[in-house]
Amino acid sequence: MSHIPVPPPNTAAEVDERCRTAGRAAPALAALPPADRAALLDRLADTLRSHEQEIVTLADTETSLGRARLTGELHRTAGQLELFAGALRDGGVLDVIIDAPDPAAQPAPRPGLRRWLVPIGPVAVFSASNFPLAFSVLGGDTASALAAGCPVVVKAHSGHPRLSDLVAGLATEVLPSGVLAVVHGREAGIRLVGHPDIAAVGFTGSVAGGRALFDLAAARPDPIPFYGELGSVNPVVVTPAASAARAGELISGFVNSFTLGNGQFCTKPGLLFLPRGHGWEDRLATAVAAVPAAPMLGPWICAGFAEARDRLAATAGVRLLAGDTKPRSGDDPTLTGPALFATSAADFAGNPAMADEAFGPAALVVEYASEQELKRVLATLPGSLTATLHADAAAEKALACRLLTLLSGKAGRVVWGGWPTGVAVAWATQHGGPWPAATPSTHTGVGVTAMRRFQRPVSFQGLPDELLPEALRDANPWHLARRVDGVPARPEPATAAGPR
Amino acid sequence: MSHIPVPPPNTAAEVDERCRTAGRAAPALAALPPADRAALLDRLADTLRSHEQEIVTLADTETSLGRARLTGELHRTAGQLELFAGALRDGGVLDVIIDAPDPAAQPAPRPGLRRWLVPIGPVAVFSASNFPLAFSVLGGDTASALAAGCPVVVKAHSGHPRLSDLVAGLATEVLPSGVLAVVHGREAGIRLVGHPDIAAVGFTGSVAGGRALFDLAAARPDPIPFYGELGSVNPVVVTPAASAARAGELISGFVNSFTLGNGQFCTKPGLLFLPRGHGWEDRLATAVAAVPAAPMLGPWICAGFAEARDRLAATAGVRLLAGDTKPRSGDDPTLTGPALFATSAADFAGNPAMADEAFGPAALVVEYASEQELKRVLATLPGSLTATLHADAAAEKALACRLLTLLSGKAGRVVWGGWPTGVAVAWATQHGGPWPAATPSTHTGVGVTAMRRFQRPVSFQGLPDELLPEALRDANPWHLARRVDGVPARPEPATAAGPR
Repeated sequence: MSHIPVPPPNTAAEVDERCRTAGRAAPALAALPPADRAALLDRLADTLRSHEQEIVTLADTETSLGRARLTGELHRTAGQLELFAGALRDGGVLDVIIDAPDPAAQPAPRPGLRRWLVPIGPVAVFSASNFPLAFSVLGGDTASALAAGCPVVVKAHSGHPRLSDLVAGLATEVLPSGVLAVVHGREAGIRLVGHPDIAAVGFTGSVAGGRALFDLAAARPDPIPFYGELGSVNPVVVTPAASAARAGELISGFVNSFTLGNGQFCTKPGLLFLPRGHGWEDRLATAVAAVPAAPMLGPWICAGFAEARDRLAATAGVRLLAGDTKPRSGDDPTLTGPALFATSAADFAGNPAMADEAFGPAALVVEYASEQELKRVLATLPGSLTATLHADAAAEKALACRLLTLLSGKAGRVVWGGWPTGVAVAWATQHGGPWPAATPSTHTGVGVTAMRRFQRPVSFQGLPDELLPEALRDANPWHLARRVDGVPARPEPATAAGPR
Repeated sequence: MSHIPVPPPNTAAEVDERCRTAGRAAPALAALPPADRAALLDRLADTLRSHEQEIVTLADTETSLGRARLTGELHRTAGQLELFAGALRDGGVLDVIIDAPDPAAQPAPRPGLRRWLVPIGPVAVFSASNFPLAFSVLGGDTASALAAGCPVVVKAHSGHPRLSDLVAGLATEVLPSGVLAVVHGREAGIRLVGHPDIAAVGFTGSVAGGRALFDLAAARPDPIPFYGELGSVNPVVVTPAASAARAGELISGFVNSFTLGNGQFCTKPGLLFLPRGHGWEDRLATAVAAVPAAPMLGPWICAGFAEARDRLAATAGVRLLAGDTKPRSGDDPTLTGPALFATSAADFAGNPAMADEAFGPAALVVEYASEQELKRVLATLPGSLTATLHADAAAEKALACRLLTLLSGKAGRVVWGGWPTGVAVAWATQHGGPWPAATPSTHTGVGVTAMRRFQRPVSFQGLPDELLPEALRDANPWHLARRVDGVPARPEPATAAGPR
């Protein structure tokens, strides 16, 4: 498929026109009942599945991620659209709250209020390099924005521009006109964030890129919410008991996790805290040496990783435990192998740059001398998407509680006894965390509640029932779970309910 | 009480120390079970009520709002604290979601996830001039932050600094040490927004002041959420049928609403859209003339209002319908009377500055010639906290639907057949709206869901039950309503549930 030309950057006029079109499409999309929006999402999922071969082939051409991984990602992306469809049919995501009037309220009578969540308006989505389907044109940001009822203009990632056009083309056959568009080029992305028709931004990428776009969104005459997933170092802590009891299993698990997808996961564990005297060096080196060099997503990722890795290698107090700091093969500079470094907690504490994310197959072992030193160092960490603890729940219960409290202050997802790579897409998913993992930390980029980023509450006071949105009417025609007079109320089942 | 000295501005070192203290107090407050946080809020309410005389007297000295209004506001403020206490006992505000593991999930097995909302950390609250109790030291921002489990550092408003210290002093007798502090002075406020221990900001005030602080929050190395309520013009639309049928009632209702509290409400209706040829001029003039001049909150408010009013008076196409553009009494320059202006929709459309908020007793009648012209002008309005419609539900149903759709795109609260002044504090309250009414538009500053501004989701993966927060354990010891495997689940009643 390499004969398909790479799409050129869009002009400012083209970006403006796509934003205006999205603005014009917004009211009709907002007015669709949730079941109809759900049907659109299901059709998008079907479209992805029915074009699996074509999509996976082009994705592999552009990203080198391999057919197996990309096929899995395609089904994950389809499943994600269907999860949002299910959430819309459930309707709890509309968060309907109804308070009856209270003429006896003190100090003043209280009018009746009926509140729900409406779409915020057109959303700009900046897709990621490392998930060309699940965090791209029909990925989580787009799925949650469409579910919320917002048109989307996607800034395609330059790592898979033709795939972006292919997926957008398939999607626009299913969606109402104007609801989804793609733009290409760095300048197009900047224009997008400043366009008056854009009401919010979803972003997945680097700290530098995300920060620049965040600043643009905040500097608008009318600032708009910017939901960014930027950078995450994903600490893993191993306690003395776990280190002693489960070294073999933890070594293979850790090396597998930090080299998975050649380290190109936002949840890659970049820091491993081990008790001093762990004695894991040789086995870590052996495990790392067994990981083959592999292609990275593109030359710019390759170069960025080499720079971050080499900076770490050159840092005072850091030693190479295992792996490469140069390409193994002089023949193919696109192949990159893993590298594992080590330092002491004392050196780590003295150099905050050691906690910067290196996007690729590198990680740093930090050796701590005592619980006190471990906690002191953990307290200085920047925010992460995840934090992981390996401990002995029985023998170290109090220690585990203290560490879990500390780690949950630093991350959106706390993993016990497992590994952070792999993000389950579910109702309870939290993919976010304190800066720079995400901004703001109050929302998630993945999972059902990601919709909430693109919803705005509106409350109606004193409206006649027949003028209210269906979701708020007495008869509850959409059969929503609602909170009424402060108490959660389940609807009658759809089959049994009739007009009343 | 004028013998109490005005507190001096705090030094940078004092601000830093109060922020650090709040940071140190955060973990223990976060760890309190919701019922214990509820008890603290109830005790704060009791404290306000039991010091009513002292508080109201000092508040009246500093704000001239009058004992009746201030007494009502005190009880409203106490009731607001109790509403959050009730919401904590209900527990739905913790938004617990539990997904069991799914080993059969495709394309990969899914781990179990348990998610809830935790406090974001210390919150800086900038209190308002016009509600020295309900939007001040123990007002809605503080109540929602404490309910969420966040310590608070309040930037006291310079309009009621001694009252702020009085209320803070009473509150600190009830609250755990370090959980609430007050700072004074403009520089102290700036320092507060930049302090590393502050995790979010709540603000009520002017567009200029709010924008400056928003910019500071966004420019931090680690940007933090800024929840501001800035400025709102609160349009009221009267349709031809309503204008013809209910002129007398609407004229007195409107004049009462825009002059209530001498126009010093954020929900004051500043724009009244009337069909051309309404014939209301004489009766509007009579009603406005009957409103006595009254003191404003302070000389700076008085001066700001005079400037905004006189700018409007001098605008091409604007004519004075009724009232004053100068103080009525040469003796007392602090007394200000109402002023009502009129213009055509065509002139209004040509000059966006006419939609700027004038904080005080002024309003502008905008006369429209047709539905088309009305809708065109409404579409250009900035965001507001409220939008109000007076129409005939039977004879104008289709028109009303079209206007309600348009108005709900411009405001957080849509009022039918009433007036926007007066904010009910309830579950379904929405006090916010598109810029510049609030930023971001995705949250409310008043009502139970205001808590959500200061909460951050955390998800736990794979934890043994005994290491989970109580809210997430199988036995549900706090008897919370939770969403389990995608389905809302009511707990067993507290009396019937035991350990299992």
